[in-house]
Amino acid sequence: MTNRLKKIDKSFIFADDKEDSEYIIYKTNKDNNDKKQMGVVFPKGFKANGYKEGKYGVTIVYSENPNTVCSGVFTSNKVYAHPVKYCKDLLLSSDDKKFNAIVINSGNANCFTKDGMQDNNKMVKVTSELLNVSENHILSASTGVIGRKMPMDIIVDRVEKAYSNLEVESNNENASKAIMTTDAFNKSVCIEIAVNDKVVKMGGIAKGAGMIAPNMQKPKNLLHATMLAVVTTDLEISANDIENCLYDATEKSFNNTVVDGDTSTNDSLFLMANGESGVKYEECKELFDKALSLVCQELAKLMARDGEGAGKLVEVLVKGANTQEDAKKASMAVVRSLLVKTAVFGNDPNWGRIVAAIGYSGADMDMNIFDLSIGDFNESTYLVKDGVQIADDGTPELKKAEQLMQKEKIKFVIDLKRGNFENTSFGCDLGHEYVRINAEYTT
Amino acid sequence: MTNRLKKIDKSFIFADDKEDSEYIIYKTNKDNNDKKQMGVVFPKGFKANGYKEGKYGVTIVYSENPNTVCSGVFTSNKVYAHPVKYCKDLLLSSDDKKFNAIVINSGNANCFTKDGMQDNNKMVKVTSELLNVSENHILSASTGVIGRKMPMDIIVDRVEKAYSNLEVESNNENASKAIMTTDAFNKSVCIEIAVNDKVVKMGGIAKGAGMIAPNMQKPKNLLHATMLAVVTTDLEISANDIENCLYDATEKSFNNTVVDGDTSTNDSLFLMANGESGVKYEECKELFDKALSLVCQELAKLMARDGEGAGKLVEVLVKGANTQEDAKKASMAVVRSLLVKTAVFGNDPNWGRIVAAIGYSGADMDMNIFDLSIGDFNESTYLVKDGVQIADDGTPELKKAEQLMQKEKIKFVIDLKRGNFENTSFGCDLGHEYVRINAEYTT
Repeated sequence: MTNRLKKIDKSFIFADDKEDSEYIIYKTNKDNNDKKQMGVVFPKGFKANGYKEGKYGVTIVYSENPNTVCSGVFTSNKVYAHPVKYCKDLLLSSDDKKFNAIVINSGNANCFTKDGMQDNNKMVKVTSELLNVSENHILSASTGVIGRKMPMDIIVDRVEKAYSNLEVESNNENASKAIMTTDAFNKSVCIEIAVNDKVVKMGGIAKGAGMIAPNMQKPKNLLHATMLAVVTTDLEISANDIENCLYDATEKSFNNTVVDGDTSTNDSLFLMANGESGVKYEECKELFDKALSLVCQELAKLMARDGEGAGKLVEVLVKGANTQEDAKKASMAVVRSLLVKTAVFGNDPNWGRIVAAIGYSGADMDMNIFDLSIGDFNESTYLVKDGVQIADDGTPELKKAEQLMQKEKIKFVIDLKRGNFENTSFGCDLGHEYVRINAEYTT
Repeated sequence: MTNRLKKIDKSFIFADDKEDSEYIIYKTNKDNNDKKQMGVVFPKGFKANGYKEGKYGVTIVYSENPNTVCSGVFTSNKVYAHPVKYCKDLLLSSDDKKFNAIVINSGNANCFTKDGMQDNNKMVKVTSELLNVSENHILSASTGVIGRKMPMDIIVDRVEKAYSNLEVESNNENASKAIMTTDAFNKSVCIEIAVNDKVVKMGGIAKGAGMIAPNMQKPKNLLHATMLAVVTTDLEISANDIENCLYDATEKSFNNTVVDGDTSTNDSLFLMANGESGVKYEECKELFDKALSLVCQELAKLMARDGEGAGKLVEVLVKGANTQEDAKKASMAVVRSLLVKTAVFGNDPNWGRIVAAIGYSGADMDMNIFDLSIGDFNESTYLVKDGVQIADDGTPELKKAEQLMQKEKIKFVIDLKRGNFENTSFGCDLGHEYVRINAEYTT
């Protein structure tokens, strides 16, 4: 199994390829753009390309296979964009969940706009005619400014050019770039898992750097997550299973990620599966679920790393919580805290701010028994142990914490010592660039 | 009545003195520091002074009258400072709620510190000996960095010097300045109300510019709000009434104010009443409650105006909500939103961010019926009316909104059109200064 996987050429990209691993994951990072054939076009049978010029771009992800099924999770914001409503209605009314394409525009959120649904339908219709696929088998998404009418002439032009590119070749790099707005770099990940003597592939692209605090729900919960992401796989999976496994992976990744704490009107995540690997979900349930969570987590971490103006990735693990909800409340309070984010930006081991955030999170806790440590994934130091302050001025612990705060990836671990639940959240620092970007966005 | 009030010399300070008003309120503002005899020493029988040198300061507020009663509301953070625990325990165990003094230090939060309770007790004991008042009749508060031992030699020195100043004269300016940490200006307000042929006076001081999202509760709720504020009055009021009216005023003011969204471990608000006006609460319940809310709101607005690095005051009124809780959820989501705060900083009428915040607030709403307007207290313009986008590129409404966003005080009004509840929250913009201040705080 491992042998088989090791054959794959991964020399051109960072890969997490331990000898005993059941999977190989290929990641992009800030300095390493995905090559054309990775990401969403890595699994068999998927094509994608995009075109962006100036502020506006369009990406098309396409699987010709008529057995391609799709699921989506969408923002729970009560104000939601027209494509969110369009996809939700279409997914709910479809029994077989068969969809062949997703068309995504950047530059305009198509939210709170007059005639916004007509504009969405037009974007879908043009894509439908070009791909020669029924409109009912195409999903859509938008990202950009809220409350401005879609410039349809430009959008149609971008759809046509994205399609022309797609006709020529599949290009994940174009696809992941055309959906960017304030993103500093494009984001994609892919993974392969070995199932008996076969290989299942999965790949994803994502955009998102601001208005990031996704809280995405299944469409049937009548809820609606501006991060956008598309994950593709050549696994064979039923319409029912695809929805459940997507939601579970979302909870472990995007729904635990915060850049600024503002939940968007447009957040959408899609999973498309076309069955072309010849492997059924039932053959590899556990491994596939793990791989999907990994892909979503890596995309979420890339988003946090690319948080508007951010330079650092922050990971917060809360363990020993009484309930799963408590664990999430506590870890999310820390990644959301402006004071923690600015301390991280300033390399300042001001751990009192972390303690305060846990205290107001609403999670059950006792300040007299918990532990807090800070680390960089390789080493760590306690700041609070058994409810007692360890790191005061002049202590070696505070010195160590100061050093660790300089790192690009920082991990805080909090053990509440109340129960057995744990949760990990992802965030970033907040500095001057965030302010600059967001004070200038529409004007 | 009005005639009587008009006699008071208010030439030296801004006063809200409409002809028909039942009260006169004296406010400070950024450019107008309070004079010595205003603020907490404005009511009869109160003395106050403070001393600050370098990072550390101490303020003492004192009423010699043995009938002085006091109430407090404290942070609901599950991590709380030693003085918060001290005051809570003392207030809960006291039947008559008789207290003569409050001692407050700045520079150290005395939170999550070894021997912190001993240090708090020492600060109280030194004050007790100087004032010749039993320790059981003195309350305390601290503000500053979390997790560092109190430098007791310095704190004792500051207590002694604050007391020496108090012996010489009452000085509200010193008192309001010695409790400052990252505050750019000192904050105090006073008011007088006419009750029959008598006058009741009330005055308050506050500090707070960061870690501001108070959620203060009565001590008996076993909950605990770093803003600090002391309000004094010469009204005669029972131990029971003083607690209830203080909490009601807190809910309409401090508990509706956000600078950064981080609820502190130290937030404390005290109300002291010594009865020296000769007016009983029963004679002026409604008017007094209104005056107390006004004082607390003005102090809260000064805090928001002085939000770390902030230049603008933002007021958000949500009306037409189904419940009071919904109204508060929606208005608080807008003042909390980083994207709204940075848009205000950039004078950017990016109203989609306001709409998105209301949508994810959790408040019951229907995006198809609500109104949103922006104004500066004198004039306003609709951005959304009956769920329809009014302000698109090139419209006069967007132009007007752009002009209004330049103002120093900005008001957003949202009418959800679902019910009859309303709530007002206070906040500020967030710019580069906020980042600078908070990336450098402890180091």
